Amino acid sequence: MNGSADTVNVELLYDYPRLEEKLIMERLKRYDMRVMMTNVNNRPLQLGEKASDISLIRTISMYKAIYAAAVRESGGTYTVNNSETILLCGDKILTLSRIKKVGLNIPRSVVAMGKESAEAAQKSFKKPFVDKPPIGSWGRLVTLISDPIVWRSILEHREMLSSQQLRVHILQDYIEGEGRDIRAIVVGENVLGAIYRVSTAGEWRSNIALGSKPAYKKMDPELKEAIIKAAEVVNGAFVSVDLLEGDGTYYVNEVNGVPEFKGFMEATGIDVADEVAKFVRSEVRK
Amino acid sequence: MNGSADTVNVELLYDYPRLEEKLIMERLKRYDMRVMMTNVNNRPLQLGEKASDISLIRTISMYKAIYAAAVRESGGTYTVNNSETILLCGDKILTLSRIKKVGLNIPRSVVAMGKESAEAAQKSFKKPFVDKPPIGSWGRLVTLISDPIVWRSILEHREMLSSQQLRVHILQDYIEGEGRDIRAIVVGENVLGAIYRVSTAGEWRSNIALGSKPAYKKMDPELKEAIIKAAEVVNGAFVSVDLLEGDGTYYVNEVNGVPEFKGFMEATGIDVADEVAKFVRSEVRK
Amino acid sequence: MNGSADTVNVELLYDYPRLEEKLIMERLKRYDMRVMMTNVNNRPLQLGEKASDISLIRTISMYKAIYAAAVRESGGTYTVNNSETILLCGDKILTLSRIKKVGLNIPRSVVAMGKESAEAAQKSFKKPFVDKPPIGSWGRLVTLISDPIVWRSILEHREMLSSQQLRVHILQDYIEGEGRDIRAIVVGENVLGAIYRVSTAGEWRSNIALGSKPAYKKMDPELKEAIIKAAEVVNGAFVSVDLLEGDGTYYVNEVNGVPEFKGFMEATGIDVADEVAKFVRSEVRK
Amino acid sequence: MNGSADTVNVELLYDYPRLEEKLIMERLKRYDMRVMMTNVNNRPLQLGEKASDISLIRTISMYKAIYAAAVRESGGTYTVNNSETILLCGDKILTLSRIKKVGLNIPRSVVAMGKESAEAAQKSFKKPFVDKPPIGSWGRLVTLISDPIVWRSILEHREMLSSQQLRVHILQDYIEGEGRDIRAIVVGENVLGAIYRVSTAGEWRSNIALGSKPAYKKMDPELKEAIIKAAEVVNGAFVSVDLLEGDGTYYVNEVNGVPEFKGFMEATGIDVADEVAKFVRSEVRK
Repeated sequence: MNGSADTVNVELLYDYPRLEEKLIMERLKRYDMRVMMTNVNNRPLQLGEKASDISLIRTISMYKAIYAAAVRESGGTYTVNNSETILLCGDKILTLSRIKKVGLNIPRSVVAMGKESAEAAQKSFKKPFVDKPPIGSWGRLVTLISDPIVWRSILEHREMLSSQQLRVHILQDYIEGEGRDIRAIVVGENVLGAIYRVSTAGEWRSNIALGSKPAYKKMDPELKEAIIKAAEVVNGAFVSVDLLEGDGTYYVNEVNGVPEFKGFMEATGIDVADEVAKFVRSEVRK
Repeated sequence: MNGSADTVNVELLYDYPRLEEKLIMERLKRYDMRVMMTNVNNRPLQLGEKASDISLIRTISMYKAIYAAAVRESGGTYTVNNSETILLCGDKILTLSRIKKVGLNIPRSVVAMGKESAEAAQKSFKKPFVDKPPIGSWGRLVTLISDPIVWRSILEHREMLSSQQLRVHILQDYIEGEGRDIRAIVVGENVLGAIYRVSTAGEWRSNIALGSKPAYKKMDPELKEAIIKAAEVVNGAFVSVDLLEGDGTYYVNEVNGVPEFKGFMEATGIDVADEVAKFVRSEVRK
Repeated sequence: MNGSADTVNVELLYDYPRLEEKLIMERLKRYDMRVMMTNVNNRPLQLGEKASDISLIRTISMYKAIYAAAVRESGGTYTVNNSETILLCGDKILTLSRIKKVGLNIPRSVVAMGKESAEAAQKSFKKPFVDKPPIGSWGRLVTLISDPIVWRSILEHREMLSSQQLRVHILQDYIEGEGRDIRAIVVGENVLGAIYRVSTAGEWRSNIALGSKPAYKKMDPELKEAIIKAAEVVNGAFVSVDLLEGDGTYYVNEVNGVPEFKGFMEATGIDVADEVAKFVRSEVRK
Repeated sequence: MNGSADTVNVELLYDYPRLEEKLIMERLKRYDMRVMMTNVNNRPLQLGEKASDISLIRTISMYKAIYAAAVRESGGTYTVNNSETILLCGDKILTLSRIKKVGLNIPRSVVAMGKESAEAAQKSFKKPFVDKPPIGSWGRLVTLISDPIVWRSILEHREMLSSQQLRVHILQDYIEGEGRDIRAIVVGENVLGAIYRVSTAGEWRSNIALGSKPAYKKMDPELKEAIIKAAEVVNGAFVSVDLLEGDGTYYVNEVNGVPEFKGFMEATGIDVADEVAKFVRSEVRK
C-alpha cells in the first residue's frame, strides 16, 4: 500500500462526498500525496489498525465523524480533526462551556434538561430569546421565541423528539445583529479570513443553507484573537468559527469541526482546500 | 450561600436519586461538608455560574451527566467526573479507542457505521461473536450472534432505531470466560477492589441488572495495572472498570463514568461512598 | 368463569386506570354485572378467544385500544367501542373524511404529507391558521400559526419526529370562537348533554388538559343533529364529539372513541358511567 | 379538466413510482381513460374536493395511502382500494382479527402489548415460534425465535423502537411449510392466480424482497375459497393474499392493500395491470 519511503499517505474518510471533499482530494494529489478514499458507510473500521500517515475526517454525519476519528486514533494515526475536537464542536453545550471557561464572550446561555426546567429558565429572559438544542447543523430547530403561545408549542414539539439530546434546551439572549453573523476559517494556527453571512428576508437565521448571502468582513485584532482562542480551546486543526457582533463586541457562538467552505471560498477567493493540503503536508513532515 | 471560610460546599447533581446518591450525601455531611442537592430535571443551569467548590455528577441519564458537568466546568468548578471522562466512558467506541491506543488488551473490535458495513465486518469473525451499539447501559442490546438468521434479524432491528448511534455496530470477538466478568472501582489513584460478576442460568451477559451474582476476585499486579491505566486514559477520578478474563490475560471492556456500586459494596464490604467523600475533601484542600 | 345463565360478564380492558374506569366498574356492579378487569400491559390476548359477553375498551393508549378491541372482536365479542370506531376517531384525517362525506360542516382542511406539500398548502390559508398532526390527544402539537418564522420552525420540528403520522400536517381555517369549543357525550343513540370548554388566559386551545374551564351549553336542534350524525358516521356507541361555533353555525372538529368524562360530569352533574352501564346491560339483553 | 361527457378520469396517487404504477398508467390509457398522476409528497389534498371519477391509491408509504384514500373519499370519489381496506391490510392484527372472525384458518396468534406480556405469552408456544410487529412490509422484523437468548435480545430491541406499534408483538405458531408461502392476487371478484414464493438458502422468510423465487401454484377449490373470503372481509377491490400451507390445510397470513405484482406477473404471465384497468373501467360505468 505504501509507495517510496517519502510518499505521504492520506486517508480521506467520507460518507457523502461534497464539493469540499473533491477539492481537498485534488489539492492533496497536487502536492504528490497519495490519497485513499474511505466510504465509512460500507468499509468496516478495525480498532488499532493503522491505515495511513494521516486521516482527514470529512463525513457529513457528526457521529460517523467522531467514530471514524476515534478508530483511526486507536491505531496511532494523526487525525484532522481529532475525535475530541469533532465531539466538542458537535455539541453546542460542550463548545460554549470551553469558550466561556477561557473568558471569551458568549451570549448569556442557560441549559435546561427538559420542559419543566425550560419553563423555569425562560423567566430570566426577555423576549425575543433564542431556543435551540445542543446538536444539529444548518440552524435546524434554532427558534426565535417572541410570544408564549409559540414557546409552548416548541416545548411540546421538543418533548416528542426521540433523541434525548434534542429534548435538551439552550436558551440564549438574542444578540441584535442586523440579521448577520461572522464566519471565519482556521487552518493550523492561521485565520484564513472571515465573512459576514447576511440572512435573507423572512428568515432571521444566517445559515448559508437557509439562503444567507456571504459578504466581506474586515479582520481586526479583537476579532482575530477571539477566533484563534476559540479554535484553540477545542484543539482544532481545521475549523470554522461563528461569531455574533453586538454591543460593540464579538460573541463566539459555534465552532464547526468538519467545516463546509464553499460559500466562504466563493466570497473571499481563498483556496481553503489548498491551505488544508499544505497544512497536512507540513504536519506529516514534522 | 457559603458558610465559614473553611466550609467545603459540594453540589450533588442528580435526576433520580438511588441508594448510591443517598450514601454519598450522608458521607459528605459526616465529614462536615455542606451538600447542595441539584435536581437537573427542574433546575436550569447557567453557563459560567459558580455554584459550589466541587460538583459531583450523579445523574442516571448519560447526556444529562455530560451537560451538567460541562456547565459547571464553564464556571470554573471542579467536577467529579469531569465532562470529558463521562463522555469517553459513555461511548464504548471512544473508551476502546483510548484503551487500545495505550496498548492495553481489548477484545478484537470492529466498528461498522450501518447494516452494509456490518455485513462486511462479520466475515472476519467466527461465531459466536458479540454485537453491540456504542451507547447504552446494563448490557442492553448486547447480543451474542450464533447464527445467520439471528444476525439478520438484529441488523433489521438496529436499522429501525431512531438514534443514529444505536444504528452503529461494534463487533467483537467473544471471550470465553465462564459467563463472568470483573468489575473494579477506582477512586482517585486507588483501586478499591474487584469482584466477579457471574451471570445466571439462561443469560450469557454478566450485568448485575440482568441478575448476575457478585463474587470475590483476588487482585493481582497485572490486573491492578490494567485497571489503573484504564482509569487514567479516560482521566477518571471515580470510575468503575469492567474486564474480561481469558487466554491467560485480562481484556478491558468498559469504563463507567457514573458508577453504580451497590453490588460491589455488598460483595466486598468496602464503603465506596466514604472513599468518595474522603477523596472530595482532599481534592478541595489541594 | 360464567355464573348463572343470566349473569352478564363484562370485561373492562385498561392500561392505566383513571377515575373514569373506576366509576364504570362500580356502576356495572351496581347493576349486577360481573366485571373482569384486564390490564393489557401484562395480559396477552389470543385471537379468536371469547373472554366475556361484552368488552369495554378503556386504555389510554390509542393503539392498545384498537388492538384490544380487534382481538376481542375476532372471538365474536361485542366491543364498546369497536375497533373501527376507535381507529376512525383516533386519526383526525379519518374522522374528518367521514364527517365531511356526509355533509356536516368542518373547518376547511387540507392534508399535506410532508414539509414540501405543507409549504404549498399554506398559500391558500390566511393567517392565523391551525396546523396539527392527524394523531395525538389533549391538543398536543396543535399550533396556531401567525407568522412565517414560527411556521418554518414548526415545519422543521415536525420533520424531526420519528413517527410518520406526526410528520403529516392538517392545515385548517381558524374558527374565531372566543377561545372555546363544545364537547358533547353520546351513549347509544342519546346525546347526554354538552358543555363549553373555555380556554384560559395565554392559551388559545380549549382542551381540559390545558387548563380550560367547563361551562354549561344549551342544546339546540341543529347542534343535536350534528352530534348524533357525527357519532353515527364513526359507528360509535360511546363517544364524545367536539365542535366549534362560528359564523352562525357548528363545525364538527373531532370525535373521541375512548372519551374522558370527568370534566363533563362535574360541569353537568350527569352520571356518565351510569348511562354507560345501563347501555351495556341493554345491549347484552338484545 | 374534464374531456367529453364519456371520458373516464382516473387519478393515480403515488409517492415513488415503481414499475407497477407505470404499467397501470399505460394500461388505463390503452382503454382511453384519462390519467392524472398525483405525487402526494408535493401536492396538498383538500378534504371534500372531487378530483376525478376514480382514484387509484398506489403509494409505498402505508400512511400516505390511507390518508390519500380518506381525503378522496371525503369528496365522494370511489377509491381503489378504499381507506378502510388499506387500513385493515396495513395492520396484521386488524387483518387477522377479521380473518379469524369469519372462521378462516390462521396460525394460532397471540397479541402482547409490550415486553412483560410478551414474556407471559411465549410460555404457551413451543419453539421455534414466530414473533412480529403488527406493521411493516417485506418481512421486516419478522423473527423466528428458537432460543431464549435470542428472544431476550429481540424483546430488548423492540422496546427501544420509537413507534408504539412496533413495540407490540404478535406471537404465532410456526407453520412448517418447506420455507414457502402462497401469494394470490384478487381483482374485483376474480382470483387472477397464485404462486409459491420459495425462500432462498439461509433465509426462512419467503418475501420476494428477501430473495425468494416465485413458482407455479395450482389453484384448488379450498384455496380459492379462502382467497376470495380473505379479500371480502377486508372489502378489497385489488389485493394480494398470502397463505401458508401445512397440516393439510391453508392458513391465511396477510392481505396487502397496495399490492406489488412484478414477481407474480413474471411467474404467471398474467397482465395484472390490464386486469386492474378493465376493472376500473367497469366500475366507473356501473
